[in-house]
Amino acid sequence: MKHYQRLEGMVAATFTPMDARGDINLSVIDKYADLMAESGMAGVFVCGTTGESHSLTTGERKAILAQWIKSARKRFKVIAHVGSNCQLEAMELARHAQEVEADAFAAMAPCFFKPSSVKDLVDFFTPIAQSAPDLPFYYYNMPSMTGVSLSVPSFLIEGKKTMPNLVGTKFTHNNLMEMGECLELNNGEFEVLHGYDEILIAGLALGAVAGVGSTYNYLPAVYQNLFDAFKEGDICTARRMQQKSIEIVKIIIKYGGGVRGGKAIMNLIGVDCGRCRLPVTPFGDDEYSSLKRDLEKIGFLN
Amino acid sequence: MKHYQRLEGMVAATFTPMDARGDINLSVIDKYADLMAESGMAGVFVCGTTGESHSLTTGERKAILAQWIKSARKRFKVIAHVGSNCQLEAMELARHAQEVEADAFAAMAPCFFKPSSVKDLVDFFTPIAQSAPDLPFYYYNMPSMTGVSLSVPSFLIEGKKTMPNLVGTKFTHNNLMEMGECLELNNGEFEVLHGYDEILIAGLALGAVAGVGSTYNYLPAVYQNLFDAFKEGDICTARRMQQKSIEIVKIIIKYGGGVRGGKAIMNLIGVDCGRCRLPVTPFGDDEYSSLKRDLEKIGFLN
Amino acid sequence: MKHYQRLEGMVAATFTPMDARGDINLSVIDKYADLMAESGMAGVFVCGTTGESHSLTTGERKAILAQWIKSARKRFKVIAHVGSNCQLEAMELARHAQEVEADAFAAMAPCFFKPSSVKDLVDFFTPIAQSAPDLPFYYYNMPSMTGVSLSVPSFLIEGKKTMPNLVGTKFTHNNLMEMGECLELNNGEFEVLHGYDEILIAGLALGAVAGVGSTYNYLPAVYQNLFDAFKEGDICTARRMQQKSIEIVKIIIKYGGGVRGGKAIMNLIGVDCGRCRLPVTPFGDDEYSSLKRDLEKIGFLN
Amino acid sequence: MKHYQRLEGMVAATFTPMDARGDINLSVIDKYADLMAESGMAGVFVCGTTGESHSLTTGERKAILAQWIKSARKRFKVIAHVGSNCQLEAMELARHAQEVEADAFAAMAPCFFKPSSVKDLVDFFTPIAQSAPDLPFYYYNMPSMTGVSLSVPSFLIEGKKTMPNLVGTKFTHNNLMEMGECLELNNGEFEVLHGYDEILIAGLALGAVAGVGSTYNYLPAVYQNLFDAFKEGDICTARRMQQKSIEIVKIIIKYGGGVRGGKAIMNLIGVDCGRCRLPVTPFGDDEYSSLKRDLEKIGFLN
Repeated sequence: MKHYQRLEGMVAATFTPMDARGDINLSVIDKYADLMAESGMAGVFVCGTTGESHSLTTGERKAILAQWIKSARKRFKVIAHVGSNCQLEAMELARHAQEVEADAFAAMAPCFFKPSSVKDLVDFFTPIAQSAPDLPFYYYNMPSMTGVSLSVPSFLIEGKKTMPNLVGTKFTHNNLMEMGECLELNNGEFEVLHGYDEILIAGLALGAVAGVGSTYNYLPAVYQNLFDAFKEGDICTARRMQQKSIEIVKIIIKYGGGVRGGKAIMNLIGVDCGRCRLPVTPFGDDEYSSLKRDLEKIGFLN
Repeated sequence: MKHYQRLEGMVAATFTPMDARGDINLSVIDKYADLMAESGMAGVFVCGTTGESHSLTTGERKAILAQWIKSARKRFKVIAHVGSNCQLEAMELARHAQEVEADAFAAMAPCFFKPSSVKDLVDFFTPIAQSAPDLPFYYYNMPSMTGVSLSVPSFLIEGKKTMPNLVGTKFTHNNLMEMGECLELNNGEFEVLHGYDEILIAGLALGAVAGVGSTYNYLPAVYQNLFDAFKEGDICTARRMQQKSIEIVKIIIKYGGGVRGGKAIMNLIGVDCGRCRLPVTPFGDDEYSSLKRDLEKIGFLN
Repeated sequence: MKHYQRLEGMVAATFTPMDARGDINLSVIDKYADLMAESGMAGVFVCGTTGESHSLTTGERKAILAQWIKSARKRFKVIAHVGSNCQLEAMELARHAQEVEADAFAAMAPCFFKPSSVKDLVDFFTPIAQSAPDLPFYYYNMPSMTGVSLSVPSFLIEGKKTMPNLVGTKFTHNNLMEMGECLELNNGEFEVLHGYDEILIAGLALGAVAGVGSTYNYLPAVYQNLFDAFKEGDICTARRMQQKSIEIVKIIIKYGGGVRGGKAIMNLIGVDCGRCRLPVTPFGDDEYSSLKRDLEKIGFLN
Repeated sequence: MKHYQRLEGMVAATFTPMDARGDINLSVIDKYADLMAESGMAGVFVCGTTGESHSLTTGERKAILAQWIKSARKRFKVIAHVGSNCQLEAMELARHAQEVEADAFAAMAPCFFKPSSVKDLVDFFTPIAQSAPDLPFYYYNMPSMTGVSLSVPSFLIEGKKTMPNLVGTKFTHNNLMEMGECLELNNGEFEVLHGYDEILIAGLALGAVAGVGSTYNYLPAVYQNLFDAFKEGDICTARRMQQKSIEIVKIIIKYGGGVRGGKAIMNLIGVDCGRCRLPVTPFGDDEYSSLKRDLEKIGFLN
C-alpha cells in the first residue's frame, strides 16, 4: 500500500448529480468539486449511501468516480465506495478505483444475503480489498441500512490479517461504545471516521478526528467551527454548532432524510444535483417552497 | 400482453449452478432442465432468491436465463426474476427477458432504499413492467428478505392501473390473511403463487393452486402428492406429505437455509450445482457427510 | 393432574368488562357467560391478552376469574391465564386458579426481561405450573407481543420433564411450520390451540382441532360453520367462512386491533364490556358510528 | 410541587438485594446505602430496570423503597421508580412514594400494550404523575427494553401541560440527537439524566450534567473523575476514564448484562445482593471465578 496520510476534519459524502429524468449528470461535478475545495473538505466519499450507490449501474459508478478524481484536481482526497451485494461487482469497482487513482476506497456489507459472523464478513471483503492493494481500505459499518451488525473491533483485528490495506472504518452506527473500542485498538492503529453528523461532538469526545457525512456538503462552516472549537477545548461553542447541525438534520428528516432532503438543499444552494432515482421519490415544487421556508426560519439560506 | 395460461402446481425456484471457484456453470442446466421436466414442474423461477440474484452481475443473469429457456424446450414455463436495487438494471433484465422469450417475469422490491408506500412501489415497478409489455408480470413479495412490507392487495389493485401486464404475486410471507385477501380480489382476478413450501397445505386451504419454492427441486413427488391429495379432499394424505416436507426443511435450516442447504442437496442427488457465492459460505466436506446422514435418517436419498 | 378432556372447537378469549372509568365490572359476566354457552363455546380463556391481563392488578384478575367460573356453571370450560412478568404473581394466580377450580390454566412468557433459551423458559414456568398441579397447563406462545420466540416443540418436550401437567400450547404465531411440528410431537401428545382466528383454516389444514381467539366472541356461527365444514371435507364452505372472518378482522385492525375494536363490537351487540384501560385508548362516539357503518356494510349486525 | 434541586453527577440505579431463594433481603440496604453515601452519589434510583421492578410484586416494591429512604438518612436523594404495565399499580406506587417522602419519582412506558402516540403516552402518565403531585416526575425513556420509541422532546412539551411536576427524563437511548434536543428545550427547562454509563462522555459533550446507571454502584471513582475532568475541560482524562468504564461494561455484557453481571460484581465487592429473580438466571460458582479473573485482568478488584 502506498503511503497514506490519515483523514482529519470534514469528508463530504457526495450526492450523485442527476437530470430531470434521473440520468446521471457528470457536467455538474466540476462546480461541485470547486465548492468542496473552497469549503475546506479533507475529502469526498463518492457513490456511498448519499450517492445512491445501490441505485446505480456499475458503469455509472465508474464514470462518476472518474469524474470526481478529475474534478478534484488533488485539492482534497477522493474515496471510492465500491460496496455491492455482488462481490464480483465490488471487486471490479475496486480495481477501477485503483486504476483511476482514487486515494482510498470503502465498502459496506452486502444487505440481501447477510454475513452472519465476523469471519464471513472478512471472507467476503478480502478479495475486494485485494483488488486494489495499493489503496487504503475502510469498512463502512452501517447496520441501520445493511442489517449487518457484527463486531467492528473484531473485524478490524481479524480483517487486518488478510487485508493489509485495511486502515479503518467509516462508523455510521449509534453504538458509540463500540466506536470507542475501535479508537482504542492497538493504541489507535485504526482510523475511525465518524458517520452521524448530528452527533459529531459525541464522536469527537470519544476521540474521533474526522467525520464523513452528507450535511458537510452544505454546512461546512458550522462543522469546521465545531471541529476547531472542540480541538481548542471550547465545548460550549462546539455544542452550539452541534445544535445548529441538529436543527438542519431535523428539517431533512422531515423531507425524507439525508439523501432526498439533502439533494434538495444542494439544488437550493446552487449545485444542480437534480432529483433522486426511485425508489427515492422526486421532490415536488410545493416541497421546495416549504423546505425553503423551513431553512429560512433557522437562518440558513441567508 | 400475449395470452397466458395460469400456473398450477409446482414451480421450482432454481439454484444457479456454479463451479468450485463460484463462477457460473451453464453446462449443467441441460441436465437440470431434464430433471425439472421429468419431475412434472409447471415452471421454473430463474435467478430469484434461491438463484442468488443479488450476488450475480447483470451479464450473468442474462446468460443464465437464456440458457434455461433453451434447455427448457417448452416443456415447462420459464419465469425470469429481474428484481434489483437498481431500477435501470431491472428494466434491462426485463427487456432481455422479453427478447429471449421468457414466459413471464417477476421482481422483488428494492431492499436498500425501500419504497415506503404502495404508490412508491407502483412507481418503482411501472417502468420495469413496461419494459416487457408482452410478458405477464408478478410482484415477488418477500418482506423477510427485502424489509418491504406493504399491502399486497392494494399494490395489485393500484398497480394494475399502470401495469396492464401485472397478473399476480409470488407471495413469500407468513401473513396468510393477506394472502387470502389477494386470492379474493375481484373474484380471483390475480394469481397468487404460494411461496413457503413448508406450509403449502395452508396456502391450498386458503385457495392457492400453485407454489414457487426451492424444495420442489428435490422433493417433487412429495409435493405432487400433496397437491393431488388436497384437490381430492384427502386432507390426511396432504398433511402427511406436508410433514415430510417439514422434515426436510428442518434439515436445510440446520445447514444454513434453503439456498445453502438446498444447493448441497442438489449436489447429493446428482445435479452439480457447485457452491454458493459469498456471503453465502461454501459447504465443507464434513457438512456433506453430516447432511447425508441426516437425509438418510428421514428416508430421503433412498 | 385430574382427568382432562381435550378441547375441540371454539374457545373465546374473553374481554374484561369495565365501566366508564375503566374499573372492572363483574356484573356483566353472567350475561356474557350465557352468550358463550348459547354460542357453543367449548371454553373461555380469561384474562389473557384480550382480557388485558397486563393492565390488571392481581386482585382484579382473581375476582374476574372467580366470577367466570361461577357464571359458567360448568356449561363450558374456564381456562385461567396466569402469565405475568413477575413469577411470584403468576404462582399466586396459579394457586388461586386451582382453588377456585378452573378447568385449566395457561401463561405467556415474561416480556420485560426475556428468557433467552428453552431451558430458561422451562425454569421460569416450572414453579408456576407446579403451583396448580391438578390443572392442565398450556404455554401461551405469542412472540409478536412478548418478544420471546423460542422453539415451542423443544419447550414441550423439555418442559414435560418438570411439568407433568403441561398439556399443550396456545399457539399465537404465524410460524405454521412450527405449529405443524408441535402437532406431530410423539404422535399428537400435545394439544395445539390455534391462536390466529383470521387463518383458522390454515391451522385446521395442519391438524389443529381447537382455536382460542377474540373474534369467536361475536362471530360464533361463522366459526362453527368453518369447523364443521372443514371436518366434513367441504373446503369451499370453510374457505367462504374464513373470508367472512377476514372481513371482520380487517375492520377491527382499522379500529386499533382485536382488543380495542373487539370490545367496541361487544358493546354494539349488547354485552356491555365498556372501555379498555390505558394505554389502550377509549373508543369515541364518532368511532362507534363509523364502526357500525363498517359492520353493516359487510352484513354483520343484521 | 416542593422546591427541588436539580441532580448533578452520579445517580446509582440500585440492585434489589435478594437471598439464595430469590426473596428480597431488606437487611442489606443499610450497608448498601452507606456505600452510596461514601461514594459521593447524588442519588439512587430504586426499583428501576437494574432493581428488577417488573419481577417484583407491588408490596415488595413499596418495602424496598421505604427501606432505602430510611437507610439513606438524607445523605443522597432517593428516586422511586413506579413504572408498571398496570396503570393502577403505578398510581398506587406513586402515592406511596409521596407518603414515604421519596425525593422524586420516575416511570417507564408500559411494554405490553404500547402507547402509539405522544398523546397516548401523556394520557397514560398523567394520572400517575398526579398521584404524587408534591414530587418531581421524570419520564424514563428506554426504547430498547419497552419497545416504546416516541419523541421525548414532544412528550416533555405536551406532558408539562397536564403534569406540572414533570421535570425531565432519564434518557436511556442511543439517539443522542434527540437527547441534545431535550437539553435545548426552552433554554434548558428540563433535566436530562444520561442513562448509558459506557458513553457518559458523549452525554456530557451534548450538555448533560447527571447520569443514572448501574455501573456507578461499583465504579464511583472512575465516573467521579470523568465528571470532574470533563467539567475542567480535560477531555483526555475524561476519555481515559470512559475507556475504563467501557472495559468493565464489556465484561458485564459477557456475563449477561448490567443486571445479572452487575449484581455478581456487587457480591464480589462485599455488598450481598444475592441472586437475580427468574427469568434472569442465577450466577454459578464457575461464573464467579471466571468473572473474578476477568475483573482482576483489568485491574478492578485490587
